[in-house]
Amino acid sequence: MERSRRAVIALGGNAMTGPDGSATPAAQRDALRESSAHIADVVASGVEVVLTHGNGPQVGNLLVKNEMAAHVVPPVPLDWNVAQTQATIAFTLADVLDAALAARGLSQRTAGLVTRTLVDADDPHFRDPSKPVGRFLPREEAERFVSLGQTWEDRGERGWRRVVASPEPLSVVDSPAIHALAAAGFVVVCAGGGGIPVSDDGRDGDGLRGVEAVIDKDLTAAILAREVDADTLVIATDVPNVMVDFGTPSARPLGRVTADELREHAAAGQFERGSMGPKVDAALRFVDAGGRRAVITSLEHIADAVAGTDAGTVLTA
Amino acid sequence: MERSRRAVIALGGNAMTGPDGSATPAAQRDALRESSAHIADVVASGVEVVLTHGNGPQVGNLLVKNEMAAHVVPPVPLDWNVAQTQATIAFTLADVLDAALAARGLSQRTAGLVTRTLVDADDPHFRDPSKPVGRFLPREEAERFVSLGQTWEDRGERGWRRVVASPEPLSVVDSPAIHALAAAGFVVVCAGGGGIPVSDDGRDGDGLRGVEAVIDKDLTAAILAREVDADTLVIATDVPNVMVDFGTPSARPLGRVTADELREHAAAGQFERGSMGPKVDAALRFVDAGGRRAVITSLEHIADAVAGTDAGTVLTA
Repeated sequence: MERSRRAVIALGGNAMTGPDGSATPAAQRDALRESSAHIADVVASGVEVVLTHGNGPQVGNLLVKNEMAAHVVPPVPLDWNVAQTQATIAFTLADVLDAALAARGLSQRTAGLVTRTLVDADDPHFRDPSKPVGRFLPREEAERFVSLGQTWEDRGERGWRRVVASPEPLSVVDSPAIHALAAAGFVVVCAGGGGIPVSDDGRDGDGLRGVEAVIDKDLTAAILAREVDADTLVIATDVPNVMVDFGTPSARPLGRVTADELREHAAAGQFERGSMGPKVDAALRFVDAGGRRAVITSLEHIADAVAGTDAGTVLTA
Repeated sequence: MERSRRAVIALGGNAMTGPDGSATPAAQRDALRESSAHIADVVASGVEVVLTHGNGPQVGNLLVKNEMAAHVVPPVPLDWNVAQTQATIAFTLADVLDAALAARGLSQRTAGLVTRTLVDADDPHFRDPSKPVGRFLPREEAERFVSLGQTWEDRGERGWRRVVASPEPLSVVDSPAIHALAAAGFVVVCAGGGGIPVSDDGRDGDGLRGVEAVIDKDLTAAILAREVDADTLVIATDVPNVMVDFGTPSARPLGRVTADELREHAAAGQFERGSMGPKVDAALRFVDAGGRRAVITSLEHIADAVAGTDAGTVLTA
């Protein structure tokens, strides 16, 4: 297997939150410090690395603050919250990853880019928001936010929960800047939370504008990897391999697979919709669009995955 | 006067908040759209532009949210809030500035970089925090935050207010990435709010770490301008010129001045400590450190200022 030259690595929630899912500054730094050791190993192998990451618990915390201060400070839209999580995760990761790179005698340093992702203002998901975000609230409290234009759903005993659109990412607006930084030798942290969703709705003739939505970070990673000309897309998660027949006696990990095989498993409903499903989908999209190799594996195996050894679930063109 | 090749432009609060100081998303976008017209004029003149900006009202809003949700979501430290404002201001500015650049047929686009500024963990300002941030609270509410380690001061009738350290910026950690983006043709938005304050306190051997402080954005701009090899530092504010004898019959605007003249005025107490003082200080530091020209003027005049015509208060080496 040919070596990688440039890899996009998408970090899941476990790379940046505590074992209990906590997203406090201390828990986030501790988790990112561990992740940085594995990322620095990849950089040490001579590969240009572009990092992207999720932001679920982090956005959840910001939504709570928005709600609780709404009568004093006007709540900001969800695109602002996504932007906010990009910056806090990027600088925390830059601090610990720079230290890990320096500890290995490497000259590369980390750069965090505020990143916008283009979505279609007419994406059908805007008419049918389905992605739950934030905490559960009693009906009477939720209704106040419904009156402000938000969509909340009755989730039974646990209460009401806000749902937002999760539109398809079309393009990473800031890909050229990401490419420039990677080419200049930086490890780039970008497109966090799938990117800040923006669209051009034609209003005011003043260009792109944030929209209230969240974008699947793995689907954005697949587009980003193509746009910055990465040969390898690594989707880092909390398991070493994608499993089929999970939870049954015939359960087995997938190693090397072709796109056709993986598509068949997906069509057979092997992968959970909110979990492994989008990761498999992202891997397929990358390879279908001309990408060389997509790997789904755990953080511990990303260096092997990028080096081309048989770690994780490996999808090749 | 020789033309500029690369300019750092520091935007004041008026460039990004409503006429009443409002920092709502709509007010911020409206203000930044107007500012973008002037910035695009500078880019159109063939100058590489690096933008930095303040974040006072924006940080204030985040502090309120921190306070009001403190019993549900652990408050994040001030360095996180600075980071958060960098991202929201950068992407909003990128949206409207990209449109202004495209409208002029220019190929440059905007890139927002999450930026850390190094401060000394032993900076004496940490022992004597003096910069007021956030809103006034009644004593009993303030005391809850004092018990969490924050410093609050009794400000009389208006109540208590938090004060934080405003340490000296030593270096912009991410200057190399800013330089790389500017050299690749991007208008860079960076070091917002003076940069995310970080220091190396030697703890854990894991590198830099955010510290609770705010850094004067003009002082950071002066360092940034030297580090990215800009010939011109423009400090954009809400008046066309620095005034001497302000509020007296002999009041007059300063045009071209030498460092010695400006220093004399400063020593005579001509410039207000929390307002024009740091701007004059930053201009002097830039030129003293080898910078060619520092200009303090209003947004309307920044294109003339960078072009080298006699707009604003112009300090040359």
